[in-house]
Amino acid sequence: MKDYLINDEWKIIEEGFHPEYNRISESIFSLGNGRQGGRGNFEEHYSGDSLQGNYIAGIYYPDKTLVGWWKNGYPEYFAKVLNAANWIGIDITINGERLDLAKMKISSFRRELNMKEGTLCRQFTASFKNGKTIEVSVIRFLSIVRPEIGAVRYCVKPLNFDAEIVATPYLDFDVVNEDSNYDEKFWEGDYIENLGNEGYVSAYTKKTGFLICSGMKFNTLNGNEEQVLCIKNDCQEKFIGSSFKIGLKQAQELTIYKYAVNASSEYFRKPELVDKAKKLLNKAFEAGFDKLLKEHRLAWNRKWKTSDIVIEGDVAAQQGIRFAIFQLNQTYTGDDERLNIGPKGFTGEKYGGSTYWDTEAFCLPFYLSTSGPLVARNLLMYRYKHLPKAIENACKLGFNTGAALYPMVTMNGEECHNEWEITFEEVHRNGAIAYAIYEYINYTGDKDYLAPFGIEVLLGISRFWSQRVNWSEQKQAYVMLGVTGPNEYENNVHNNWHTNNIAVWTLKYTLESIQWMKELHPSEWLAVTEKTRFNDEAETNMWRHIIGKMYFPWDEERKIILQQDGFLDKELEPASAINPAERPISQHWSWDRILRSPYIKQADVLQSLYLFEDQYDKTFISRHFDFYEPLTVHESSLSSCIHTILAASVGKPEKAYSLYLRTARLDLNDYNNDTCEGLHITSMGGTWMSVVKGFGGIRVLGNALHLNPILPANWKSYCFRVNFRGNHLQVKVMPRTIEITNHSDGDLSLFVYAKSVTLLKNKTSVIHYSNI
Amino acid sequence: MKDYLINDEWKIIEEGFHPEYNRISESIFSLGNGRQGGRGNFEEHYSGDSLQGNYIAGIYYPDKTLVGWWKNGYPEYFAKVLNAANWIGIDITINGERLDLAKMKISSFRRELNMKEGTLCRQFTASFKNGKTIEVSVIRFLSIVRPEIGAVRYCVKPLNFDAEIVATPYLDFDVVNEDSNYDEKFWEGDYIENLGNEGYVSAYTKKTGFLICSGMKFNTLNGNEEQVLCIKNDCQEKFIGSSFKIGLKQAQELTIYKYAVNASSEYFRKPELVDKAKKLLNKAFEAGFDKLLKEHRLAWNRKWKTSDIVIEGDVAAQQGIRFAIFQLNQTYTGDDERLNIGPKGFTGEKYGGSTYWDTEAFCLPFYLSTSGPLVARNLLMYRYKHLPKAIENACKLGFNTGAALYPMVTMNGEECHNEWEITFEEVHRNGAIAYAIYEYINYTGDKDYLAPFGIEVLLGISRFWSQRVNWSEQKQAYVMLGVTGPNEYENNVHNNWHTNNIAVWTLKYTLESIQWMKELHPSEWLAVTEKTRFNDEAETNMWRHIIGKMYFPWDEERKIILQQDGFLDKELEPASAINPAERPISQHWSWDRILRSPYIKQADVLQSLYLFEDQYDKTFISRHFDFYEPLTVHESSLSSCIHTILAASVGKPEKAYSLYLRTARLDLNDYNNDTCEGLHITSMGGTWMSVVKGFGGIRVLGNALHLNPILPANWKSYCFRVNFRGNHLQVKVMPRTIEITNHSDGDLSLFVYAKSVTLLKNKTSVIHYSNI
Repeated sequence: MKDYLINDEWKIIEEGFHPEYNRISESIFSLGNGRQGGRGNFEEHYSGDSLQGNYIAGIYYPDKTLVGWWKNGYPEYFAKVLNAANWIGIDITINGERLDLAKMKISSFRRELNMKEGTLCRQFTASFKNGKTIEVSVIRFLSIVRPEIGAVRYCVKPLNFDAEIVATPYLDFDVVNEDSNYDEKFWEGDYIENLGNEGYVSAYTKKTGFLICSGMKFNTLNGNEEQVLCIKNDCQEKFIGSSFKIGLKQAQELTIYKYAVNASSEYFRKPELVDKAKKLLNKAFEAGFDKLLKEHRLAWNRKWKTSDIVIEGDVAAQQGIRFAIFQLNQTYTGDDERLNIGPKGFTGEKYGGSTYWDTEAFCLPFYLSTSGPLVARNLLMYRYKHLPKAIENACKLGFNTGAALYPMVTMNGEECHNEWEITFEEVHRNGAIAYAIYEYINYTGDKDYLAPFGIEVLLGISRFWSQRVNWSEQKQAYVMLGVTGPNEYENNVHNNWHTNNIAVWTLKYTLESIQWMKELHPSEWLAVTEKTRFNDEAETNMWRHIIGKMYFPWDEERKIILQQDGFLDKELEPASAINPAERPISQHWSWDRILRSPYIKQADVLQSLYLFEDQYDKTFISRHFDFYEPLTVHESSLSSCIHTILAASVGKPEKAYSLYLRTARLDLNDYNNDTCEGLHITSMGGTWMSVVKGFGGIRVLGNALHLNPILPANWKSYCFRVNFRGNHLQVKVMPRTIEITNHSDGDLSLFVYAKSVTLLKNKTSVIHYSNI
Repeated sequence: MKDYLINDEWKIIEEGFHPEYNRISESIFSLGNGRQGGRGNFEEHYSGDSLQGNYIAGIYYPDKTLVGWWKNGYPEYFAKVLNAANWIGIDITINGERLDLAKMKISSFRRELNMKEGTLCRQFTASFKNGKTIEVSVIRFLSIVRPEIGAVRYCVKPLNFDAEIVATPYLDFDVVNEDSNYDEKFWEGDYIENLGNEGYVSAYTKKTGFLICSGMKFNTLNGNEEQVLCIKNDCQEKFIGSSFKIGLKQAQELTIYKYAVNASSEYFRKPELVDKAKKLLNKAFEAGFDKLLKEHRLAWNRKWKTSDIVIEGDVAAQQGIRFAIFQLNQTYTGDDERLNIGPKGFTGEKYGGSTYWDTEAFCLPFYLSTSGPLVARNLLMYRYKHLPKAIENACKLGFNTGAALYPMVTMNGEECHNEWEITFEEVHRNGAIAYAIYEYINYTGDKDYLAPFGIEVLLGISRFWSQRVNWSEQKQAYVMLGVTGPNEYENNVHNNWHTNNIAVWTLKYTLESIQWMKELHPSEWLAVTEKTRFNDEAETNMWRHIIGKMYFPWDEERKIILQQDGFLDKELEPASAINPAERPISQHWSWDRILRSPYIKQADVLQSLYLFEDQYDKTFISRHFDFYEPLTVHESSLSSCIHTILAASVGKPEKAYSLYLRTARLDLNDYNNDTCEGLHITSMGGTWMSVVKGFGGIRVLGNALHLNPILPANWKSYCFRVNFRGNHLQVKVMPRTIEITNHSDGDLSLFVYAKSVTLLKNKTSVIHYSNI
């Protein structure tokens, strides 16, 4: 746990430089705009510890799978997230000495992420060994209006001397990845041009052949005057730099405006890419820094209007939830159905690949509620477009007739995870993808998504389940052998309850959807059956048989669902009995010991109870919470949120709040000792859910919105915004009072604590309750 | 399946060159002497497909473990078997053209492994494109009398022209390993010297720092005259070559005698190594080729006297069993307790590391019976010496108080396997190591091995078992969770019957052994308890409790032991129902499908029934054989032998014979399509067991030898030799007759078909039976 950042409602602030935490800070101070992003690296040279990272959406390298012994069905590659061109770089030499904070005496330092405006600022005062002191002030942003454009304003001022400054804005595509096996490089230079204050480098990714053209253009103010510069150009392989020399009197300031473009062959034809990049960059250059920044701020303002959560009375919590919302919005904007939400977003290399079941299970609700149906729909279309590859993937594993198994990790629909106990076995993910279709339709009412998209995905997944189970003569039931549930501290188990449950649920939901298609979209249904060669009678009969005869492990004595067969053979000591020095167990125990232990990495049975909460009464859920939560070590960043939501829902507010604290500032306080590698972006979706679904108790049941808020004891109030079927609501929960503002042109009826309430259009309704 | 070799009783013969099978032939024609060995590569240059391999016992490189995701407890390295100096090389150029069988027209070719004498011969006649034809004849051996010495006699004769020959005997330490990650090399040059017809290269292994000095010395006969040569020396990094030119008239023969030494720092002090190598080589050179060959032949003759098996009426079977015996004797001679039997011996790189549980389970009986107790005892001492590392290994996984877990794969006692489902979980191997102590004592009667060696190993292993089980409240019994049994087509199962069984057996045997120590070696026992800090009462009480309360999965309806919990949930289709095009399933099915299937890679429940056969009646064993054998795909080379032995013992002779055929010529016919990578050395121990324990029905029960022979239908007779407690017996089984010759100075009583028979010293007893 680290606590070196200053609590603030809208900003993340590092006051005083903490080089020992620099990698953590670089992760936390990351910027992104959905198309590109990068870590909070310094513009000027820094010889201290740093992880340099700039990432461009959808760009990856397929690295050869490394395993001890090959097992049939392993994917051929693991997708590496690639560090792309360093576009922020400005090298500064002052009177012959290079500016490098690792080697200077720093008298003041402040790094500040302004989440409201999407900017990263830095000011510092530092002295060279000879006592010459300078002041530097930088502001940087990645435009969310112009997805290819980033800009830096870099000011440097000699405080106690006259300076001769050599500044070298540069663009470096000759970058390394930390995640490489033999320090190999992944970019192949394509084109290079340096025109003085403007230059371009384009490079291909090896194997995948993505082409990126990065460009920079800059101008300077000396004091308030634009400078005519004498520029010395440097062109190396995949690198351009443009040096100029300038004399500054004491206290005179040099300002460099650097504009950059990163254009991708995902959006422009390769032969035109350089030209397009030039046009985009010059347009931005002409607009100028202030105009770019202004439009960027306004766009962030609009985002916050639909997604902000305000917490009164707890600045740390306020900062934490805004950080989560800010990062989710930086990572995914939903305007490109080929993109998704990587576990580390644009903040680090780890976990290669972009898409896990995290997206459907932990991120979809956020985008559904705050960005409206089109953004969420693109997350669904992403999977729809990958359906042929999911079918191919299942086929490689020995399934047939259109069974689809979505990959555990993917960039383009192909599996790129390579541990069999996860790759082959963690099949519950397939259920999460089916469930996302249900959740989208349930939330938006857009049932037409089923025809023709959703239904094809449901058919593929249902076919997979029906082939993945087998009939047990012994049990006279269908069983599902050899799976890994969400709790990855168990591998290759039989009859993981959650997996069996979501499989049966998928079959039922697919049957309902087929019925609906037949009734309302008969011709589309016909087309789907032909396309998928669906044998209606035989397949649906089989599914009904499985629904009726699925085996679910259960302990009659305790009236408890069992996580999997044989779970009760374990020594069921609570996690609190583990020596604290041995936590997290993943870092202290052998895998052998973890597998045999009863300890649960993240919600497993409880994941199902969360998803299908409406099928169980609160006593039932509460009993299971009391049985499983004490065994849960929450060593996945995706664990606490589900537990928070369930605890809140079954009337355990203190427990809900204490669990929420594990997720709320996970990265800001580096609880898991791994923020240095990047942020836990997908878990931030869980943080948001903890507040809105957990404390807010938001549910959609029978086409109506339900609210069951609770108020954590140390919060004065909280206020969140949701978009529900075109109605934009703002819900403020205070002691004994709920204020709901309907920012819409129509009235809306919803349920608060199960009682119907009608919200008039453009009005705030204030409702009083004794039990909040 | 390949069938290009000629059947012969004593030889392996390739008639006509089969370049497409060259790697297979190179494996099959391997030579070894227990200290070094190498593949049947050609002496002269060969540009066709080949796996060059020369290996020196105990020399390895610890390669960094490659895994997708690191799991705590993984070993740091995987031991690579290293290709060492090519000492056989003789490059030949004739009238300016290089001799290279890949580029010549071959009119005759014969490669021949003489198993009786331990020599590899090759003759060929081949023509250059210009029609010039030569005849070459080579004989090579690795002395089993002088473990560092090898020799080649290489004769070349121009048949239809006068030739100018340039011959270059060389020594090349600049070799590659196929098993390398980045084509890196593993030898670091140390010393190099080239004196003309004599030269030396010594090199260190990277990381491990083993030092090997290889040397060569040669002379030549032109016709019958020794030549004085004008030698041109070539010294490169880790390479020496000595070229000489010689003129030959048509039909005149040049003979090169090349002697080589490979001396290892495992046997000589590093500073003296080069000197020692020189002395050894010069002694061999002085002795000369014929004398070296003669002593070598005589030594092989002695080996065959105690280990031969003669089969009449089936040349293919005769060749197969002799090949097995020959390779086992080439691989391990038992004179160094630091050595062991690698799965590929000296015939290939695969499976890195040398020692698996194969040694105890499949090889020990061969050496016990054919080489006498000292050789077998060294196999036990190997494990005794590794006990501290086995304790360390268990400690790394979270066990304590002296619990020992022997590694799955090792060179020096450290684990060097890196798949968790095998490394951590295949713990039954620990039982095999305990059982080997029992088997050794049972066979030899040398119970004193327990004090002080055996008992310490037993204590360590028993402590492991007692910590590895846990109490199941649910079952009110001890369970063993998360293991992999011998059937590696199941991973992370609970209560693998064999593992639970051998654990309980170990505890019982350890308790018995402790009792015996207390009675007969009280002071040694005291020393052991002090050394191991053994808490006699607490620990043995715990063991007794586990023995009494261990859980064993069982199907009451079928009266069948279950391989593991939940086995009956599988679809129990026999292996015969699998589409033959999909066999072996390991090459055709995904790992996911294999794990869920009921198919068994190698004996698992049946492994226990084989080991503890005397505890079960034949009906019981037969019922289990009928249940499990049809589910067994025998995709381990170690599978068929156990099934053969059980089938023979429960009166299924045809089944026994058909299973035997899978093991008998596994490599000679390349049944598994992998002989190109090296021979299945440890499985050859199983082949031998199939004959002696299977058909011969040899058992030792209550200190007496028992024989229950059957005769396969198409064999006229078979005759094997065993050494039992100083008595050397030769048992010949013929239809209705058994002839047993007691080649000893004392009488011996044994049981044939459960009836006592006394064999008079130095006499042959002939016994008639109606049922053979």
